[in-house]
Amino acid sequence: MDINLLLFPDFETLDAFGPVEVLGRIPEYALHYCSMDGGPVESRQSGTIITESIENVDKSGILLIPGGQGTRPLVEDELFISRLKRLAEQSSYCLTVCTGSALLAKTTLLDSRKATSNKRAFEWAREVNPNVQWEARARWVSDDKFYTSSGVSAGIDLALGFVADQFGIARAEAIASAVEYIWNSDQHHDPFSNTNQ
Amino acid sequence: MDINLLLFPDFETLDAFGPVEVLGRIPEYALHYCSMDGGPVESRQSGTIITESIENVDKSGILLIPGGQGTRPLVEDELFISRLKRLAEQSSYCLTVCTGSALLAKTTLLDSRKATSNKRAFEWAREVNPNVQWEARARWVSDDKFYTSSGVSAGIDLALGFVADQFGIARAEAIASAVEYIWNSDQHHDPFSNTNQ
Repeated sequence: MDINLLLFPDFETLDAFGPVEVLGRIPEYALHYCSMDGGPVESRQSGTIITESIENVDKSGILLIPGGQGTRPLVEDELFISRLKRLAEQSSYCLTVCTGSALLAKTTLLDSRKATSNKRAFEWAREVNPNVQWEARARWVSDDKFYTSSGVSAGIDLALGFVADQFGIARAEAIASAVEYIWNSDQHHDPFSNTNQ
Repeated sequence: MDINLLLFPDFETLDAFGPVEVLGRIPEYALHYCSMDGGPVESRQSGTIITESIENVDKSGILLIPGGQGTRPLVEDELFISRLKRLAEQSSYCLTVCTGSALLAKTTLLDSRKATSNKRAFEWAREVNPNVQWEARARWVSDDKFYTSSGVSAGIDLALGFVADQFGIARAEAIASAVEYIWNSDQHHDPFSNTNQ
């Protein structure tokens, strides 16, 4: 199955490359670095990645959406959001990291679903779409085919959680060990939550 | 000060982009994505990054060297190693992640110095240069201007440790919190070590 990473200007580096490190270790998955129209895309941390147009890949794969400052203008970009909605609908699974969930929320596909986001941008995500069941205390959340994570490095935990759901926890643990990552495997443990509830 | 990230074919994604995420949040640092001769460089996880030639940047900055499968042929590449030696000598600090320390060890600049590496590739690193004081149980190690880390995600901990040494621990903790990363701040805590000593 294809992993279609959807990059956009000012995406946050680790939002994208944390999950890439995990999912890139699954031989059954083929990674595609995409953007809406292809070409070079520059991250918030000024790294330039070569992408192919997402129109040219198999859209039935796993759609992976990072967050970052670049999501702020994009939630107001109606063309981007309408294209994203179709991509997310066509995907087998849709994974977001950090404020990537705000983009997905804007499509309305998360309406009445459980989701989470970066805890520093949480109120903003809620404003983007208050019809989502935003979970204020979660490292990551899954609801049907939608997986959403907390901020930046939480994407690594989400990716491992997704691997555990797809292939069993032993495989997720083996990848965590291979990359010497101390996996926060409890999705309800969220030390960065603003709530004590 | 410049951060000069030195990429090469088959570098490991998170080795590079974990520290980039941390160091990219220091306004005093400017990130440069480099390779020996510039141009596109493909990671082990098939992402293509645009780089500039490291000959064109200020070499007195901080040299950051990832690891990955690409280090295996490069330790045998005499021209690469001799160029790397000069770059590391000219740098103010030299940071390596994972098997990036094997490349640095090959230059002889780590001789009689403390260093560490990926615990799954540890014996190989030792074979590359047995004159290094390889530490089998360490998340990361610093010795003078050289910082070396354990595997892949340990590079995030190293980068935060470097920030703590340069700017104080509060600043490192603030970055860890901003990226919602549970920092393994004890460099001697190494759950992936093969030794119990």
